[in-house]
Amino acid sequence: MLDYPALAALSEILRRGSFEGAAAALGVTPSAISQRIKGLEERMGEVLIQRGPPPRGTQKALRLVQHLDQVRLLEQALDPDAPKATLRIAVNADSLATWFPPVMTALPVLYDLVIDDQDHARDWLRQGQVSAAISSDPNPVPGCDVTPLGHMRYHAMATPEFIARHFANGVNATTLGAPAVIFNEKDAAQSRWAQAATGQRVHPTGHMIPSSEGFARAVELGLGWGMIPEAMARPPLAHLNAHLPLDVPLHWHVQRAMRPALAPLSRAIKQRAAAELRP
Amino acid sequence: MLDYPALAALSEILRRGSFEGAAAALGVTPSAISQRIKGLEERMGEVLIQRGPPPRGTQKALRLVQHLDQVRLLEQALDPDAPKATLRIAVNADSLATWFPPVMTALPVLYDLVIDDQDHARDWLRQGQVSAAISSDPNPVPGCDVTPLGHMRYHAMATPEFIARHFANGVNATTLGAPAVIFNEKDAAQSRWAQAATGQRVHPTGHMIPSSEGFARAVELGLGWGMIPEAMARPPLAHLNAHLPLDVPLHWHVQRAMRPALAPLSRAIKQRAAAELRP
Repeated sequence: MLDYPALAALSEILRRGSFEGAAAALGVTPSAISQRIKGLEERMGEVLIQRGPPPRGTQKALRLVQHLDQVRLLEQALDPDAPKATLRIAVNADSLATWFPPVMTALPVLYDLVIDDQDHARDWLRQGQVSAAISSDPNPVPGCDVTPLGHMRYHAMATPEFIARHFANGVNATTLGAPAVIFNEKDAAQSRWAQAATGQRVHPTGHMIPSSEGFARAVELGLGWGMIPEAMARPPLAHLNAHLPLDVPLHWHVQRAMRPALAPLSRAIKQRAAAELRP
Repeated sequence: MLDYPALAALSEILRRGSFEGAAAALGVTPSAISQRIKGLEERMGEVLIQRGPPPRGTQKALRLVQHLDQVRLLEQALDPDAPKATLRIAVNADSLATWFPPVMTALPVLYDLVIDDQDHARDWLRQGQVSAAISSDPNPVPGCDVTPLGHMRYHAMATPEFIARHFANGVNATTLGAPAVIFNEKDAAQSRWAQAATGQRVHPTGHMIPSSEGFARAVELGLGWGMIPEAMARPPLAHLNAHLPLDVPLHWHVQRAMRPALAPLSRAIKQRAAAELRP
Protein backbone atom coordinates (compact mmCIF):
# COMPACT_ATOMS: atom_id res chain seq x y z
CA MET A 1 0.00 0.00 0.00
CA LEU A 2 1.01 3.60 -0.50
CA ASP A 3 1.88 5.75 2.50
CA TYR A 4 -1.37 7.72 2.82
CA PRO A 5 -0.24 10.17 5.52
CA ALA A 6 2.63 11.08 3.17
CA LEU A 7 0.15 11.54 0.30
CA ALA A 8 -1.94 13.79 2.57
CA ALA A 9 1.19 15.89 3.27
CA LEU A 10 1.93 16.11 -0.45
CA SER A 11 -1.66 17.17 -1.17
CA GLU A 12 -1.64 19.89 1.49
CA ILE A 13 1.71 21.30 0.35
CA LEU A 14 0.48 21.68 -3.21
CA ARG A 15 -2.94 22.99 -2.16
CA ARG A 16 -1.56 25.55 0.33
CA GLY A 17 1.65 26.47 -1.44
CA SER A 18 4.02 25.88 1.49
CA PHE A 19 5.37 23.22 3.83
CA GLU A 20 4.39 25.46 6.78
CA GLY A 21 0.78 25.72 5.57
CA ALA A 22 0.61 21.95 5.18
CA ALA A 23 2.07 21.44 8.67
CA ALA A 24 -0.49 23.82 10.21
CA ALA A 25 -3.34 22.13 8.36
CA LEU A 26 -2.29 18.65 9.46
CA GLY A 27 -1.31 19.68 12.99
CA VAL A 28 2.28 18.43 12.72
CA THR A 29 5.67 20.16 12.50
CA PRO A 30 7.14 21.30 9.18
CA SER A 31 10.02 18.88 9.67
CA ALA A 32 7.54 15.99 9.98
CA ILE A 33 6.09 17.12 6.65
CA SER A 34 9.55 17.21 5.07
CA GLN A 35 10.30 13.71 6.34
CA ARG A 36 7.07 12.32 4.91
CA ILE A 37 7.85 13.82 1.52
CA LYS A 38 11.42 12.55 1.61
CA GLY A 39 10.20 9.05 2.41
CA LEU A 40 7.64 9.19 -0.37
CA GLU A 41 10.22 10.42 -2.88
CA GLU A 42 12.56 7.57 -1.90
CA ARG A 43 9.78 5.04 -2.24
CA MET A 44 8.79 6.44 -5.65
CA GLY A 45 12.38 6.77 -6.78
CA GLU A 46 11.86 10.30 -8.04
CA VAL A 47 11.55 13.89 -6.95
CA LEU A 48 7.91 14.85 -6.36
CA ILE A 49 8.20 18.50 -5.35
CA GLN A 50 10.31 21.19 -6.94
CA ARG A 51 11.15 23.26 -3.88
CA GLY A 52 10.01 26.81 -4.46
CA PRO A 53 8.75 29.11 -3.26
CA PRO A 54 6.13 28.18 -4.07
CA PRO A 55 6.73 24.42 -4.10
CA ARG A 56 5.48 22.83 -7.31
CA GLY A 57 4.44 19.24 -7.83
CA THR A 58 5.80 17.06 -10.59
CA GLN A 59 3.36 15.29 -12.89
CA LYS A 60 3.80 12.18 -10.75
CA ALA A 61 2.95 14.20 -7.62
CA LEU A 62 -0.24 15.51 -9.22
CA ARG A 63 -1.27 11.95 -10.08
CA LEU A 64 -0.61 10.81 -6.51
CA VAL A 65 -2.74 13.66 -5.12
CA GLN A 66 -5.52 12.82 -7.53
CA HIS A 67 -5.31 9.19 -6.44
CA LEU A 68 -5.58 10.28 -2.79
CA ASP A 69 -8.69 12.32 -3.61
CA GLN A 70 -10.21 9.34 -5.35
CA VAL A 71 -9.52 7.02 -2.41
CA ARG A 72 -11.04 9.60 -0.06
CA LEU A 73 -14.10 9.89 -2.24
CA LEU A 74 -14.54 6.12 -2.23
CA GLU A 75 -14.05 6.10 1.59
CA GLN A 76 -16.68 8.79 1.92
CA ALA A 77 -19.22 6.52 0.23
CA LEU A 78 -18.50 3.95 3.01
CA ASP A 79 -18.52 6.47 5.84
CA PRO A 80 -20.54 9.68 5.48
CA ASP A 81 -18.78 11.16 8.55
CA ALA A 82 -15.35 10.90 6.91
CA PRO A 83 -13.67 14.26 6.20
CA LYS A 84 -14.85 15.69 2.91
CA ALA A 85 -12.99 14.47 -0.14
CA THR A 86 -11.85 16.79 -2.91
CA LEU A 87 -13.19 16.20 -6.40
CA ARG A 88 -11.20 17.71 -9.25
CA ILE A 89 -13.21 18.15 -12.42
CA ALA A 90 -12.80 20.12 -15.63
CA VAL A 91 -15.76 22.27 -16.73
CA ASN A 92 -16.01 24.52 -19.77
CA ALA A 93 -16.37 28.18 -18.85
CA ASP A 94 -19.79 28.72 -20.44
CA SER A 95 -21.30 25.75 -18.58
CA LEU A 96 -19.92 27.13 -15.30
CA ALA A 97 -21.44 30.53 -16.16
CA THR A 98 -24.88 29.08 -16.93
CA TRP A 99 -26.42 25.68 -16.09
CA PHE A 100 -23.67 23.88 -14.18
CA PRO A 101 -23.37 25.37 -10.63
CA PRO A 102 -26.52 23.89 -9.02
CA VAL A 103 -25.44 20.31 -9.77
CA MET A 104 -22.52 20.77 -7.38
CA THR A 105 -24.86 20.41 -4.41
CA ALA A 106 -25.57 16.78 -5.40
CA LEU A 107 -22.37 15.45 -3.84
CA PRO A 108 -20.95 16.42 -0.41
CA VAL A 109 -17.37 16.97 -1.55
CA LEU A 110 -14.98 19.88 -1.89
CA TYR A 111 -14.87 20.80 -5.57
CA ASP A 112 -11.64 21.77 -7.29
CA LEU A 113 -12.83 23.09 -10.65
CA VAL A 114 -10.50 23.48 -13.59
CA ILE A 115 -11.80 25.67 -16.37
CA ASP A 116 -11.80 23.36 -19.33
CA ASP A 117 -9.47 23.97 -22.01
CA GLN A 118 -10.65 21.42 -24.48
CA ASP A 119 -7.22 20.03 -25.29
CA HIS A 120 -6.03 19.82 -21.73
CA ALA A 121 -9.22 18.17 -20.45
CA ARG A 122 -8.36 15.04 -22.42
CA ASP A 123 -4.76 14.98 -21.18
CA TRP A 124 -5.84 15.58 -17.61
CA LEU A 125 -8.39 12.77 -17.76
CA ARG A 126 -5.88 10.40 -19.33
CA GLN A 127 -3.27 11.17 -16.70
CA GLY A 128 -5.77 10.93 -13.87
CA GLN A 129 -5.35 14.59 -12.90
CA VAL A 130 -9.10 15.16 -13.03
CA SER A 131 -11.76 12.58 -12.19
CA ALA A 132 -14.31 13.84 -14.68
CA ALA A 133 -14.85 16.54 -17.27
CA ILE A 134 -17.57 18.38 -19.13
CA SER A 135 -16.27 18.91 -22.61
CA SER A 136 -17.50 19.33 -26.15
CA ASP A 137 -15.21 16.48 -27.19
CA PRO A 138 -17.26 13.32 -27.85
CA ASN A 139 -14.28 10.97 -28.05
CA PRO A 140 -13.89 8.71 -25.03
CA VAL A 141 -10.58 8.87 -23.19
CA PRO A 142 -9.10 5.41 -22.37
CA GLY A 143 -10.41 4.30 -18.98
CA CYS A 144 -13.29 6.79 -19.03
CA ASP A 145 -16.98 6.56 -19.84
CA VAL A 146 -18.62 9.32 -21.83
CA THR A 147 -22.28 10.39 -21.78
CA PRO A 148 -23.73 12.89 -24.26
CA LEU A 149 -25.56 15.70 -22.42
CA GLY A 150 -27.18 17.59 -25.27
CA HIS A 151 -26.23 20.85 -26.93
CA MET A 152 -25.48 24.30 -25.68
CA ARG A 153 -27.04 26.79 -28.09
CA TYR A 154 -25.22 29.99 -29.03
CA HIS A 155 -26.43 32.98 -31.00
CA ALA A 156 -24.32 35.44 -32.99
CA MET A 157 -25.11 38.77 -31.32
CA ALA A 158 -24.03 42.39 -31.03
CA THR A 159 -25.59 45.68 -29.98
CA PRO A 160 -28.15 47.18 -32.40
CA GLU A 161 -25.73 50.10 -32.98
CA PHE A 162 -22.89 47.72 -33.84
CA ILE A 163 -25.14 45.83 -36.25
CA ALA A 164 -26.35 49.06 -37.90
CA ARG A 165 -22.76 50.24 -38.29
CA HIS A 166 -21.08 47.05 -39.48
CA PHE A 167 -23.80 44.83 -40.94
CA ALA A 168 -26.00 47.33 -42.81
CA ASN A 169 -25.14 45.38 -45.99
CA GLY A 170 -25.95 42.04 -44.40
CA VAL A 171 -23.75 39.31 -42.94
CA ASN A 172 -21.11 38.22 -45.44
CA ALA A 173 -17.41 37.40 -45.59
CA THR A 174 -16.57 41.11 -45.91
CA THR A 175 -18.78 42.51 -43.17
CA LEU A 176 -17.64 39.70 -40.83
CA GLY A 177 -14.29 41.50 -40.84
CA ALA A 178 -15.87 43.69 -38.12
CA PRO A 179 -14.25 43.11 -34.71
CA ALA A 180 -15.41 39.95 -32.99
CA VAL A 181 -15.15 39.05 -29.32
CA ILE A 182 -13.30 35.76 -28.89
CA PHE A 183 -12.89 33.77 -25.66
CA ASN A 184 -9.29 32.70 -26.32
CA GLU A 185 -7.14 31.57 -29.20
CA LYS A 186 -8.77 28.10 -29.12
CA ASP A 187 -12.31 29.46 -29.36
CA ALA A 188 -13.60 28.44 -32.79
CA ALA A 189 -17.27 29.36 -32.23
CA GLN A 190 -17.09 32.63 -34.17
CA SER A 191 -15.25 31.00 -37.10
CA ARG A 192 -17.66 28.07 -37.22
CA TRP A 193 -20.67 30.35 -37.23
CA ALA A 194 -19.13 32.65 -39.85
CA GLN A 195 -18.52 29.66 -42.09
CA ALA A 196 -22.09 28.41 -41.62
CA ALA A 197 -23.45 31.91 -42.32
CA THR A 198 -21.41 32.58 -45.46
CA GLY A 199 -20.43 29.17 -46.85
CA GLN A 200 -16.85 30.47 -46.92
CA ARG A 201 -13.86 30.10 -44.65
CA VAL A 202 -13.82 33.28 -42.63
CA HIS A 203 -11.37 34.02 -39.82
CA PRO A 204 -12.96 36.55 -37.48
CA THR A 205 -10.48 38.58 -35.47
CA GLY A 206 -11.01 40.85 -32.54
CA HIS A 207 -10.84 41.12 -28.78
CA MET A 208 -9.72 38.19 -26.63
CA ILE A 209 -11.73 38.12 -23.39
CA PRO A 210 -11.16 34.82 -21.55
CA SER A 211 -14.09 35.10 -19.12
CA SER A 212 -17.70 34.16 -19.95
CA GLU A 213 -19.24 37.22 -18.31
CA GLY A 214 -16.45 39.56 -19.42
CA PHE A 215 -17.08 38.25 -22.93
CA ALA A 216 -20.81 39.03 -22.77
CA ARG A 217 -20.11 42.45 -21.22
CA ALA A 218 -17.69 43.31 -24.03
CA VAL A 219 -20.37 42.45 -26.61
CA GLU A 220 -22.96 44.49 -24.66
CA LEU A 221 -20.55 47.44 -24.64
CA GLY A 222 -20.41 47.37 -28.44
CA LEU A 223 -16.77 46.25 -28.67
CA GLY A 224 -17.60 43.49 -31.14
CA TRP A 225 -19.95 40.68 -32.16
CA GLY A 226 -19.71 37.28 -30.55
CA MET A 227 -21.37 33.92 -29.92
CA ILE A 228 -23.50 34.28 -26.78
CA PRO A 229 -24.94 31.28 -24.89
CA GLU A 230 -28.73 31.23 -25.21
CA ALA A 231 -29.08 31.65 -21.42
CA MET A 232 -27.14 34.95 -21.57
CA ALA A 233 -28.83 36.28 -24.72
CA ARG A 234 -30.83 39.32 -23.62
CA PRO A 235 -31.22 43.01 -24.51
CA PRO A 236 -29.34 45.18 -25.35
CA LEU A 237 -27.97 42.34 -27.47
CA ALA A 238 -29.54 41.72 -30.88
CA HIS A 239 -29.17 38.88 -33.38
CA LEU A 240 -26.94 38.93 -36.44
CA ASN A 241 -29.18 36.13 -37.72
CA ALA A 242 -31.83 34.77 -35.37
CA HIS A 243 -32.43 31.77 -37.64
CA LEU A 244 -28.88 30.49 -37.49
CA PRO A 245 -27.93 29.33 -33.99
CA LEU A 246 -24.75 27.33 -33.31
CA ASP A 247 -25.30 24.17 -31.25
CA VAL A 248 -22.24 22.88 -29.40
CA PRO A 249 -22.48 19.33 -28.03
CA LEU A 250 -21.48 18.69 -24.42
CA HIS A 251 -20.30 15.39 -22.97
CA TRP A 252 -19.72 14.12 -19.44
CA HIS A 253 -16.52 12.11 -19.18
CA VAL A 254 -15.99 10.09 -15.99
CA GLN A 255 -13.08 7.89 -14.99
CA ARG A 256 -14.50 4.41 -14.83
CA ALA A 257 -13.10 3.71 -11.34
CA MET A 258 -14.85 6.84 -10.06
CA ARG A 259 -18.18 6.09 -11.64
CA PRO A 260 -19.88 4.58 -8.55
CA ALA A 261 -18.68 7.34 -6.21
CA LEU A 262 -19.80 10.04 -8.65
CA ALA A 263 -23.21 8.49 -9.42
CA PRO A 264 -25.26 11.17 -7.58
CA LEU A 265 -23.40 13.94 -9.40
CA SER A 266 -23.73 12.20 -12.76
CA ARG A 267 -27.47 11.86 -12.17
CA ALA A 268 -27.83 15.55 -11.27
CA ILE A 269 -25.80 16.58 -14.34
CA LYS A 270 -27.91 14.45 -16.67
CA GLN A 271 -31.16 15.79 -15.19
CA ARG A 272 -30.11 19.40 -15.33
CA ALA A 273 -28.66 19.05 -18.82
CA ALA A 274 -31.94 17.50 -19.97
CA ALA A 275 -33.80 20.55 -18.62
CA GLU A 276 -31.36 23.31 -19.59
CA LEU A 277 -29.64 22.15 -22.78
CA ARG A 278 -31.01 21.47 -26.25
CA PRO A 279 -31.39 17.79 -27.19
CA MET B 1 14.78 47.80 -38.60
CA LEU B 2 12.94 44.58 -37.95
CA ASP B 3 11.07 42.86 -40.78
CA TYR B 4 7.51 43.96 -39.93
CA PRO B 5 5.69 41.82 -42.52
CA ALA B 6 7.46 38.83 -40.97
CA LEU B 7 6.38 39.97 -37.48
CA ALA B 8 2.81 40.26 -38.79
CA ALA B 9 3.03 36.67 -40.06
CA LEU B 10 4.35 35.51 -36.68
CA SER B 11 1.55 37.33 -34.89
CA GLU B 12 -1.17 35.83 -37.08
CA ILE B 13 0.21 32.30 -36.77
CA LEU B 14 0.15 32.49 -32.98
CA ARG B 15 -3.23 34.23 -32.87
CA ARG B 16 -4.92 31.81 -35.30
CA GLY B 17 -3.13 28.63 -34.39
CA SER B 18 -2.02 27.68 -37.92
CA PHE B 19 0.13 28.77 -40.84
CA GLU B 20 -2.92 28.36 -43.11
CA GLY B 21 -5.03 30.66 -40.94
CA ALA B 22 -2.28 33.27 -40.98
CA ALA B 23 -1.98 32.97 -44.76
CA ALA B 24 -5.73 33.45 -45.22
CA ALA B 25 -5.78 36.43 -42.88
CA LEU B 26 -2.88 38.14 -44.65
CA GLY B 27 -3.98 37.19 -48.17
CA VAL B 28 -0.77 35.36 -49.06
CA THR B 29 0.14 31.71 -49.58
CA PRO B 30 1.13 29.43 -46.69
CA SER B 31 4.57 29.02 -48.25
CA ALA B 32 5.05 32.81 -48.21
CA ILE B 33 4.24 32.70 -44.50
CA SER B 34 6.78 29.89 -43.95
CA GLN B 35 9.46 31.87 -45.80
CA ARG B 36 8.86 34.97 -43.72
CA ILE B 37 9.17 32.97 -40.50
CA LYS B 38 12.29 31.21 -41.75
CA GLY B 39 13.89 34.56 -42.60
CA LEU B 40 12.95 35.99 -39.22
CA GLU B 41 14.35 32.96 -37.40
CA GLU B 42 17.63 33.29 -39.34
CA ARG B 43 17.83 36.99 -38.54
CA MET B 44 17.14 36.33 -34.85
CA GLY B 45 19.45 33.34 -34.74
CA GLU B 46 16.90 31.20 -32.95
CA VAL B 47 13.78 29.14 -33.46
CA LEU B 48 10.64 31.23 -32.90
CA ILE B 49 7.89 28.70 -33.48
CA GLN B 50 7.68 25.15 -32.22
CA ARG B 51 5.86 23.52 -35.11
CA GLY B 52 2.68 21.89 -33.83
CA PRO B 53 -0.10 21.43 -34.30
CA PRO B 54 -0.84 23.87 -32.91
CA PRO B 55 2.30 25.94 -33.54
CA ARG B 56 3.57 27.53 -30.33
CA GLY B 57 5.68 30.64 -30.00
CA THR B 58 8.87 30.74 -28.00
CA GLN B 59 9.30 33.44 -25.36
CA LYS B 60 11.23 35.48 -27.88
CA ALA B 61 8.37 35.13 -30.40
CA LEU B 62 5.86 36.40 -27.82
CA ARG B 63 8.06 39.42 -27.16
CA LEU B 64 8.31 40.16 -30.87
CA VAL B 65 4.54 39.98 -31.25
CA GLN B 66 4.07 42.27 -28.29
CA HIS B 67 6.56 44.68 -29.82
CA LEU B 68 4.58 44.61 -33.09
CA ASP B 69 1.38 45.42 -31.20
CA GLN B 70 3.09 48.33 -29.50
CA VAL B 71 4.39 49.73 -32.76
CA ARG B 72 0.91 49.39 -34.28
CA LEU B 73 -0.61 51.17 -31.31
CA LEU B 74 1.86 54.04 -31.68
CA GLU B 75 1.12 54.16 -35.45
CA GLN B 76 -2.58 54.31 -34.70
CA ALA B 77 -2.04 57.49 -32.68
CA LEU B 78 -0.50 59.02 -35.84
CA ASP B 79 -3.13 57.70 -38.22
CA PRO B 80 -6.64 56.98 -36.94
CA ASP B 81 -7.47 55.07 -40.13
CA ALA B 82 -4.68 52.55 -39.56
CA PRO B 83 -5.87 48.97 -38.93
CA LYS B 84 -6.75 48.45 -35.29
CA ALA B 85 -3.84 47.56 -33.05
CA THR B 86 -4.05 44.83 -30.43
CA LEU B 87 -3.47 45.77 -26.80
CA ARG B 88 -2.52 42.95 -24.45
CA ILE B 89 -3.21 43.73 -20.82
CA ALA B 90 -3.51 41.70 -17.64
CA VAL B 91 -6.62 42.27 -15.51
CA ASN B 92 -7.56 40.56 -12.27
CA ALA B 93 -10.70 38.44 -12.58
CA ASP B 94 -12.79 40.38 -10.04
CA SER B 95 -12.10 43.71 -11.76
CA LEU B 96 -13.16 42.19 -15.08
CA ALA B 97 -16.34 40.88 -13.42
CA THR B 98 -17.23 44.28 -11.91
CA TRP B 99 -15.95 47.78 -12.71
CA PHE B 100 -13.45 47.24 -15.53
CA PRO B 101 -15.34 46.46 -18.80
CA PRO B 102 -16.70 49.97 -19.64
CA VAL B 103 -13.20 51.49 -19.67
CA MET B 104 -12.37 49.35 -22.71
CA THR B 105 -14.41 51.67 -24.92
CA ALA B 106 -11.92 54.52 -24.25
CA LEU B 107 -9.38 53.27 -26.77
CA PRO B 108 -10.17 51.99 -30.31
CA VAL B 109 -7.99 48.90 -30.18
CA LEU B 110 -8.52 45.14 -30.15
CA TYR B 111 -8.09 43.99 -26.56
CA ASP B 112 -6.30 40.79 -25.69
CA LEU B 113 -7.06 40.34 -22.00
CA VAL B 114 -5.07 38.01 -19.81
CA ILE B 115 -6.69 37.14 -16.52
CA ASP B 116 -4.20 38.35 -13.99
CA ASP B 117 -2.43 35.91 -12.00
CA GLN B 118 -0.62 38.18 -9.62
CA ASP B 119 2.76 36.50 -9.99
CA HIS B 120 2.66 36.23 -13.72
CA ALA B 121 1.50 39.81 -14.28
CA ARG B 122 4.87 41.06 -13.04
CA ASP B 123 6.81 38.63 -15.22
CA TRP B 124 4.71 39.47 -18.26
CA LEU B 125 5.20 43.19 -17.76
CA ARG B 126 8.93 42.78 -17.26
CA GLN B 127 9.27 40.67 -20.39
CA GLY B 128 7.09 43.00 -22.41
CA GLN B 129 4.42 40.35 -23.00
CA VAL B 130 1.70 42.67 -21.76
CA SER B 131 1.69 46.45 -22.15
CA ALA B 132 -0.14 47.15 -18.91
CA ALA B 133 -1.72 45.40 -15.96
CA ILE B 134 -4.24 45.92 -13.19
CA SER B 135 -2.85 44.17 -10.18
CA SER B 136 -2.94 44.34 -6.41
CA ASP B 137 0.85 44.47 -6.42
CA PRO B 138 2.06 48.03 -5.62
CA ASN B 139 5.70 47.42 -6.55
CA PRO B 140 6.73 49.03 -9.82
CA VAL B 141 8.18 46.75 -12.47
CA PRO B 142 11.38 48.10 -14.08
CA GLY B 143 10.43 50.23 -17.09
CA CYS B 144 6.83 50.63 -15.94
CA ASP B 145 4.92 53.38 -14.17
CA VAL B 146 2.44 52.46 -11.46
CA THR B 147 -0.66 54.41 -10.36
CA PRO B 148 -2.69 53.46 -7.29
CA LEU B 149 -6.39 53.11 -8.17
CA GLY B 150 -7.99 52.65 -4.77
CA HIS B 151 -9.29 49.56 -3.04
CA MET B 152 -11.70 46.84 -4.01
CA ARG B 153 -13.81 46.00 -0.98
CA TYR B 154 -14.72 42.39 -0.20
CA HIS B 155 -17.11 41.02 2.41
CA ALA B 156 -17.02 37.57 4.00
CA MET B 157 -20.39 36.11 3.05
CA ALA B 158 -22.44 32.93 2.92
CA THR B 159 -26.10 31.96 2.76
CA PRO B 160 -28.12 32.51 5.96
CA GLU B 161 -28.57 28.71 6.21
CA PHE B 162 -24.82 28.15 5.95
CA ILE B 163 -24.18 30.76 8.64
CA ALA B 164 -26.81 29.24 10.95
CA ARG B 165 -25.33 25.79 10.47
CA HIS B 166 -21.61 26.57 10.72
CA PHE B 167 -21.31 29.88 12.60
CA ALA B 168 -23.98 29.56 15.30
CA ASN B 169 -21.14 29.83 17.84
CA GLY B 170 -19.66 32.88 16.13
CA VAL B 171 -16.71 33.29 13.79
CA ASN B 172 -13.54 31.80 15.29
CA ALA B 173 -10.60 29.64 14.30
CA THR B 174 -12.69 26.48 14.83
CA THR B 175 -15.85 27.49 13.02
CA LEU B 176 -13.74 28.85 10.13
CA GLY B 177 -12.95 25.19 9.43
CA ALA B 178 -16.29 25.21 7.56
CA PRO B 179 -15.82 24.86 3.80
CA ALA B 180 -14.71 28.05 2.09
CA VAL B 181 -14.93 28.92 -1.59
CA ILE B 182 -11.50 29.85 -2.94
CA PHE B 183 -10.68 31.29 -6.36
CA ASN B 184 -7.46 29.31 -6.86
CA GLU B 185 -4.48 28.15 -4.88
CA LYS B 186 -3.00 31.67 -4.92
CA ASP B 187 -6.15 33.31 -3.54
CA ALA B 188 -5.25 34.50 -0.03
CA ALA B 189 -8.38 36.64 0.56
CA GLN B 190 -10.11 34.06 2.77
CA SER B 191 -6.95 33.45 4.85
CA ARG B 192 -6.30 37.17 5.26
CA TRP B 193 -9.84 37.82 6.39
CA ALA B 194 -9.82 34.82 8.74
CA GLN B 195 -6.63 36.12 10.34
CA ALA B 196 -8.09 39.61 10.72
CA ALA B 197 -11.29 38.16 12.22
CA THR B 198 -9.63 35.84 14.71
CA GLY B 199 -6.14 37.24 15.31
CA GLN B 200 -4.83 33.75 14.56
CA ARG B 201 -3.31 32.10 11.53
CA VAL B 202 -6.17 30.17 9.99
CA HIS B 203 -5.95 28.24 6.72
CA PRO B 204 -9.45 28.00 5.25
CA THR B 205 -9.95 25.06 2.90
CA GLY B 206 -12.73 24.27 0.54
CA HIS B 207 -13.87 24.46 -3.06
CA MET B 208 -11.64 25.89 -5.77
CA ILE B 209 -13.75 27.81 -8.31
CA PRO B 210 -11.50 29.83 -10.63
CA SER B 211 -14.23 32.09 -12.09
CA SER B 212 -15.57 35.24 -10.42
CA GLU B 213 -19.21 34.51 -11.15
CA GLY B 214 -18.87 30.76 -10.59
CA PHE B 215 -17.33 31.65 -7.23
CA ALA B 216 -20.28 33.87 -6.25
CA ARG B 217 -22.76 31.25 -7.50
CA ALA B 218 -21.09 28.55 -5.39
CA VAL B 219 -21.42 30.77 -2.29
CA GLU B 220 -25.07 31.52 -3.17
CA LEU B 221 -25.72 27.78 -3.50
CA GLY B 222 -24.51 27.24 0.07
CA LEU B 223 -21.35 25.33 -0.86
CA GLY B 224 -19.18 27.48 1.38
CA TRP B 225 -18.34 30.96 2.66
CA GLY B 226 -16.15 33.28 0.63
CA MET B 227 -14.91 36.83 0.08
CA ILE B 228 -17.39 38.53 -2.27
CA PRO B 229 -16.63 41.84 -4.06
CA GLU B 230 -18.90 44.59 -2.70
CA ALA B 231 -20.46 45.03 -6.15
CA MET B 232 -21.61 41.39 -6.14
CA ALA B 233 -22.76 41.31 -2.49
CA ARG B 234 -26.53 40.85 -2.61
CA PRO B 235 -29.21 38.54 -1.20
CA PRO B 236 -29.37 35.60 -0.66
CA LEU B 237 -25.86 36.26 0.63
CA ALA B 238 -25.44 37.40 4.23
CA HIS B 239 -22.45 38.73 6.16
CA LEU B 240 -20.26 36.70 8.47
CA ASN B 241 -19.26 40.06 9.97
CA ALA B 242 -20.58 43.19 8.29
CA HIS B 243 -18.14 45.36 10.25
CA LEU B 244 -15.03 43.65 8.95
CA PRO B 245 -14.56 44.19 5.20
CA LEU B 246 -11.31 43.32 3.42
CA ASP B 247 -9.92 46.11 1.22
CA VAL B 248 -7.59 44.98 -1.54
CA PRO B 249 -5.54 47.74 -3.24
CA LEU B 250 -5.45 47.86 -7.03
CA HIS B 251 -2.72 49.44 -9.16
CA TRP B 252 -2.41 50.32 -12.84
CA HIS B 253 0.99 49.37 -14.22
CA VAL B 254 1.89 50.74 -17.67
CA GLN B 255 5.05 50.23 -19.70
CA ARG B 256 6.65 53.65 -19.90
CA ALA B 257 7.06 53.53 -23.70
CA MET B 258 3.33 52.84 -24.03
CA ARG B 259 2.20 55.57 -21.70
CA PRO B 260 1.39 58.20 -24.36
CA ALA B 261 -0.51 55.75 -26.58
CA LEU B 262 -2.49 54.45 -23.59
CA ALA B 263 -3.30 57.86 -22.10
CA PRO B 264 -7.05 57.79 -22.95
CA LEU B 265 -7.39 54.33 -21.39
CA SER B 266 -5.39 55.34 -18.31
CA ARG B 267 -7.65 58.37 -17.88
CA ALA B 268 -10.80 56.24 -18.18
CA ILE B 269 -9.43 53.71 -15.69
CA LYS B 270 -8.56 56.37 -13.14
CA GLN B 271 -11.98 58.03 -13.49
CA ARG B 272 -13.92 54.81 -13.19
CA ALA B 273 -11.77 53.55 -10.32
CA ALA B 274 -12.38 56.84 -8.49
CA ALA B 275 -16.13 56.30 -8.89
CA GLU B 276 -16.35 52.55 -8.29
CA LEU B 277 -13.54 51.69 -5.88
CA ARG B 278 -12.93 52.72 -2.27
CA PRO B 279 -10.24 55.37 -1.72
